[in-house]
Amino acid sequence: MRILFLGDVMGRGGRKAVVERLPGLRAELKADFVVVNGENASGGMGLTGGHASLLFEAGADCVTLGDHAFDQKEMLSHIDGDDRILRPLNYAKVAPGRGARIFEVSRGRRVLVVQALGQVFMKRPFDDPFSAVEAELKRAPLGGRVNATLVDIHAEATSEKMAMGHWCDGRASVVVGTHTHVPTGDAQVLPKGTAYMTDAGMCGDYDSVIGMTKDEPLRRFITGMPKGRFQPAEGEATLSGLFVETDDATGKALACAPVRVGGRLAEARPA
Amino acid sequence: MRILFLGDVMGRGGRKAVVERLPGLRAELKADFVVVNGENASGGMGLTGGHASLLFEAGADCVTLGDHAFDQKEMLSHIDGDDRILRPLNYAKVAPGRGARIFEVSRGRRVLVVQALGQVFMKRPFDDPFSAVEAELKRAPLGGRVNATLVDIHAEATSEKMAMGHWCDGRASVVVGTHTHVPTGDAQVLPKGTAYMTDAGMCGDYDSVIGMTKDEPLRRFITGMPKGRFQPAEGEATLSGLFVETDDATGKALACAPVRVGGRLAEARPA
Amino acid sequence: MRILFLGDVMGRGGRKAVVERLPGLRAELKADFVVVNGENASGGMGLTGGHASLLFEAGADCVTLGDHAFDQKEMLSHIDGDDRILRPLNYAKVAPGRGARIFEVSRGRRVLVVQALGQVFMKRPFDDPFSAVEAELKRAPLGGRVNATLVDIHAEATSEKMAMGHWCDGRASVVVGTHTHVPTGDAQVLPKGTAYMTDAGMCGDYDSVIGMTKDEPLRRFITGMPKGRFQPAEGEATLSGLFVETDDATGKALACAPVRVGGRLAEARPA
Amino acid sequence: MRILFLGDVMGRGGRKAVVERLPGLRAELKADFVVVNGENASGGMGLTGGHASLLFEAGADCVTLGDHAFDQKEMLSHIDGDDRILRPLNYAKVAPGRGARIFEVSRGRRVLVVQALGQVFMKRPFDDPFSAVEAELKRAPLGGRVNATLVDIHAEATSEKMAMGHWCDGRASVVVGTHTHVPTGDAQVLPKGTAYMTDAGMCGDYDSVIGMTKDEPLRRFITGMPKGRFQPAEGEATLSGLFVETDDATGKALACAPVRVGGRLAEARPA
Ligand SMILES: [Fe+2]
Ligand SMILES: [Fe+2]
Ligand SMILES: [Fe+2]
Ligand SMILES: [Fe+2]
Ligand SMILES: [Fe+2]
Ligand SMILES: [Fe+2]
Ligand SMILES: [Fe+2]
Ligand SMILES: [Fe+2]
Repeated sequence: MRILFLGDVMGRGGRKAVVERLPGLRAELKADFVVVNGENASGGMGLTGGHASLLFEAGADCVTLGDHAFDQKEMLSHIDGDDRILRPLNYAKVAPGRGARIFEVSRGRRVLVVQALGQVFMKRPFDDPFSAVEAELKRAPLGGRVNATLVDIHAEATSEKMAMGHWCDGRASVVVGTHTHVPTGDAQVLPKGTAYMTDAGMCGDYDSVIGMTKDEPLRRFITGMPKGRFQPAEGEATLSGLFVETDDATGKALACAPVRVGGRLAEARPA
Repeated sequence: MRILFLGDVMGRGGRKAVVERLPGLRAELKADFVVVNGENASGGMGLTGGHASLLFEAGADCVTLGDHAFDQKEMLSHIDGDDRILRPLNYAKVAPGRGARIFEVSRGRRVLVVQALGQVFMKRPFDDPFSAVEAELKRAPLGGRVNATLVDIHAEATSEKMAMGHWCDGRASVVVGTHTHVPTGDAQVLPKGTAYMTDAGMCGDYDSVIGMTKDEPLRRFITGMPKGRFQPAEGEATLSGLFVETDDATGKALACAPVRVGGRLAEARPA
Repeated sequence: MRILFLGDVMGRGGRKAVVERLPGLRAELKADFVVVNGENASGGMGLTGGHASLLFEAGADCVTLGDHAFDQKEMLSHIDGDDRILRPLNYAKVAPGRGARIFEVSRGRRVLVVQALGQVFMKRPFDDPFSAVEAELKRAPLGGRVNATLVDIHAEATSEKMAMGHWCDGRASVVVGTHTHVPTGDAQVLPKGTAYMTDAGMCGDYDSVIGMTKDEPLRRFITGMPKGRFQPAEGEATLSGLFVETDDATGKALACAPVRVGGRLAEARPA
Repeated sequence: MRILFLGDVMGRGGRKAVVERLPGLRAELKADFVVVNGENASGGMGLTGGHASLLFEAGADCVTLGDHAFDQKEMLSHIDGDDRILRPLNYAKVAPGRGARIFEVSRGRRVLVVQALGQVFMKRPFDDPFSAVEAELKRAPLGGRVNATLVDIHAEATSEKMAMGHWCDGRASVVVGTHTHVPTGDAQVLPKGTAYMTDAGMCGDYDSVIGMTKDEPLRRFITGMPKGRFQPAEGEATLSGLFVETDDATGKALACAPVRVGGRLAEARPA
């Protein structure tokens, strides 16, 4: 199976890049299944139902969220009506929506998508993601109930994300990180067959501070005093993510490669 | 000027990769100046004088440290006897050694190297790195007292590192991050001429948890309980860093590209 | 029922104060049930089986622990052989021992003791204590299966501890905090009948930095650089805690008052 | 000299308690100098000029702030016009206002007041408070330029506050903590003559979560999801603080005692 994952879509610029480029990219890569992280698609904070629709129309089969899942309050009611949207498994015990779901893909194939939040360096506390993810992997074993499994580990610390990669190695097809808004250069297939990349990066303007217009974040770092609000940067966005090819029988990854298209970053496409 | 920067050398495996591969890499890239981050070169924690010598013999002109600067106690006395070793500017008011120094390069050229620690998500508190770095940049302006300036921002948060890049944009030739042990895929020349990469990555084994053998970190994440010590992973290391070409007159970056050689990660070399 | 709770016993000085003063204090207060937090009793870090015995012999009916529960490795095997010792409910999924237990008291009365760790500002992440504590309260309702319930909330943040107090108000007889090693002056019976005190304080030497000899902590704060180890301060310890009188029928608190005996702090005893 | 310090005034209820009770308390204690922490006096967040006036009219000679110093934007311009208001020394390099000032008291006596922010567990990073405070103590030595010195250490961690107490011991008359909104029961004169109390507590309603109406903080802790805003609790406030008597010649503390008047907490007054 050919799977494309795109990292945190950042505001209007990120949405525009997805709308304009994802259809072509999906076709070019002959992707069977596309997952897009949408936690920052609406004004940089959360996701509205309308913007979720844009992402699906552009070619996403599944949209994952993150710690900003419900920054747009309408998502609290919207999520239970659209089972293509996932919030982290361990977001909160009472959160609406779900953190894992099996999707049907062409030719009867099935893909499990799981999202979990890390605990290290996060602004709010969340329960242990390792046991939460494992429960889902056991419920739908790779090569058994599902042909592929993708885990979106939404976390800050590289240590926690690498640990999640190894913890799932051989039990998931893909473990890909989100949340830092910077793509990593470490895409690899781990020893037991899981494609891994510490962070997919954002779909946003990289002449920015993690996707926000530079002025206010710089002011806060330099003066220690806030003045205005954060605003998503409006320069051309780079689509950033990971492409993975898996074996439908075993669910193991055969190859993976970073994807970076448009905007300021050096282009990267699967060979 | 052709500048090569290599990220955190991790234990014996990292040292071995530097010793075996840096001489050839330096020659191949015709590098004029090489900076290596050595904060984890000795057992994954700190740097001994002996291991510093290995790095210099292999081709480093300057070795930077980080939050682990003095984990090996002998560095407390060693550093003042070797002015090629820098510790972060804002490590501690009473720390021995220095955080910035001008190095002489061939043909009378001069390079300022500065290292600073970030404040966000660090285990210990440090004073503001932005004002500390700026003081050094003003003392030796680019295109004035120095032909090139490299800032090693040793920090966890992508936001703080991107902010440092923009803060120095046009005033430093290179701002490169260290500390997360994962290379980023965002190498770029910022609008005013500073080469930037959020993290250089480690020179270490990427089948690991940030360079440490997987067992103990995994145990801690999964069970919540420590059992043994962290040990550097011993698999083949990938040398990871950033290559930058600068204009000797203006000090601005002309181009930059990630460097990844050996080990598990996909190879990257300047075009 | 008359319940005495003593906060974190700190090293040799803390043990000595418990051994010398607790028997008399227990008699004087006619306490029916005594709980002592022992997480720092052995060298300031953890609790050995031998030191646990000392606390029981001096008059403790139950010993609670905390984030330092297993700093003394022998507690990993000892705890399952002594059901008077509790570790936090949410310490780790695989931790030995238990986080809640019902104790038999004179005249057929039963007391539930529960300990949980906070999540805010703790050095390691722990799962949500609120749902964990609630499950225990529901399993053995106050005025039903048990005559009294004491919750030891081992946490840093005053906000989280006050929230736990209100969350349990009317469902526990006592919610008392530990971990900061400083007694608070806010002992009160909350509106629905739960005795509450944000922190019981330590049984330790208050001419110290949270019970440790001043030199090394001061050096670290002032110079930013560690030099030696932390050592428990050896001056005379103050026993510090909370005394509560409850109604055996309803389990509600009738009155509560801080207890401070010996050492440097102003003495406090129930009227 | 007789010095009264009151902790963080919390919203309308806290202001009301100060206005109604401080004049009488000041008279009763024959206080020569009164310092009130006002960082939460306006809606629980920051301080307006108008509310500052209320505190001064009620009997404050000096008002200190904290991490919430400029939550009310008007304080940014107001503070430089009223030198009785201090913000933390290490709030930010560019912050308006000052962090230390000498006040004239009756009979030609002079009092230095200093405020600093801690670094441990704070939501934003601040520069080292220890060196900042020391510089002020050296500029106006106790028993030399000033008859008394009061340090308000606005910090979360008990360890950092106790360390500041010992660091200033013999060099300040009083070191008193603020920020946690819970009074501690550890008021004492340290070995070299500094009166010390880890936290003065808030002037607010103690049937609350650190002064805020319980509902929203409880919802956030229990469900992990915010719903509304924090609102200061409106029940009767307890004035909470520390009273210290000092020797005008040496500046050393002769005695100290907690002050708690009104509201839910057990009353405390100097003997
Ligand atoms: Fe994001
Ligand atoms: Fe996020
Ligand atoms: Fe490192
Ligand atoms: Fe580091
Ligand atoms: Fe403790
Ligand atoms: Fe503790
Ligand atoms: Fe406050
Ligand atoms: Fe505060």
